[in-house]
Amino acid sequence: MESIEKLITNLNKLPGIGIKTAQRLAYHMIAMPDESITALAESILEAKRRIHFCPVCGNYTENELCEICSNPKRNSETLCVVKDARDVGFMERMREYNGKYHVLGGVLSPMDGIGPDKLRIKELVERIRTEHVKEVILATNPDVEGEATASYIAKLLKDEPVRVTRIAHGIPIGGNLEFVDEMTLFKAMENRRDMV
Amino acid sequence: MESIEKLITNLNKLPGIGIKTAQRLAYHMIAMPDESITALAESILEAKRRIHFCPVCGNYTENELCEICSNPKRNSETLCVVKDARDVGFMERMREYNGKYHVLGGVLSPMDGIGPDKLRIKELVERIRTEHVKEVILATNPDVEGEATASYIAKLLKDEPVRVTRIAHGIPIGGNLEFVDEMTLFKAMENRRDMV
Repeated sequence: MESIEKLITNLNKLPGIGIKTAQRLAYHMIAMPDESITALAESILEAKRRIHFCPVCGNYTENELCEICSNPKRNSETLCVVKDARDVGFMERMREYNGKYHVLGGVLSPMDGIGPDKLRIKELVERIRTEHVKEVILATNPDVEGEATASYIAKLLKDEPVRVTRIAHGIPIGGNLEFVDEMTLFKAMENRRDMV
Repeated sequence: MESIEKLITNLNKLPGIGIKTAQRLAYHMIAMPDESITALAESILEAKRRIHFCPVCGNYTENELCEICSNPKRNSETLCVVKDARDVGFMERMREYNGKYHVLGGVLSPMDGIGPDKLRIKELVERIRTEHVKEVILATNPDVEGEATASYIAKLLKDEPVRVTRIAHGIPIGGNLEFVDEMTLFKAMENRRDMV
């Protein structure tokens, strides 16, 4: 049965989906009612088709600007700098942060050839200057690359009239924003420290 | 972003996919190249569209009869009775069984209103008579419902001129065919015991 093997292969390519999980999912999908499986496949294609990056902050959006950038109630004097667009969603789960975001689109990684020019760092500096930002919170992951990226940006912003802070190590070292509970994230934001 | 929430909801409905995994998968899918994500969505729909149940044994197939029923090299004197079409695939991984299969489409479960008439038991009896089957191997899972179903079928076949066997308890009690390694499955088949 070629078609099920193709499906298993495709599912197996997804992160965290091993061969056994892929098999289980594939067989489950075949047994699902027609309308549920069509809804699933269509929601995959629709999300992919409709969602793009916000040209201002780099967050995911279905509109021209993202929900946060276009919300006049969000405080534009604070920018929270994160690695990925997904991290915005993880930070928002906390429901305590009322500023805006800036998505880097990655972290510095010389081994993979990712230097400052590959990240949205130039755009960050420009936003700080034009949007009269008063504080930049560096919320990259507390791993080696995340720390290096935070240090690099802190140094770069040394002479700008802006407070540069780093989220506190409430997050376990080597951890990932994705797997941290809301309370820990809140503590990490509360205990942020000045970097410059 | 409605479309990503819809996607997350749909992924979250799949077995073993919790809300965090659904989020991770959804964000990963959005970041995938167009052709990969289209291939994934299409392979889901194609598998669902092309695969149906073999009218003889109840296994999954893309053709009129399944690969096993239509293979003249398979010994039709032995029928291995399993719960689901997926179980055929798990048994086949063993590469030691050369007989044919009969899929029940479930197991007896009075609590859920599943009686013998809801399973393909009548079809099993008919096949035993018309296909001159010499041995029926009952390979339902070694859990409460699987054992009850095996006992029910064994009793039903008492007066038929057929050997009725049960796969051995090489498989851990309360376990599931899906998570058993090939060697254990092979032992379980080898040590099968007569039930009638």
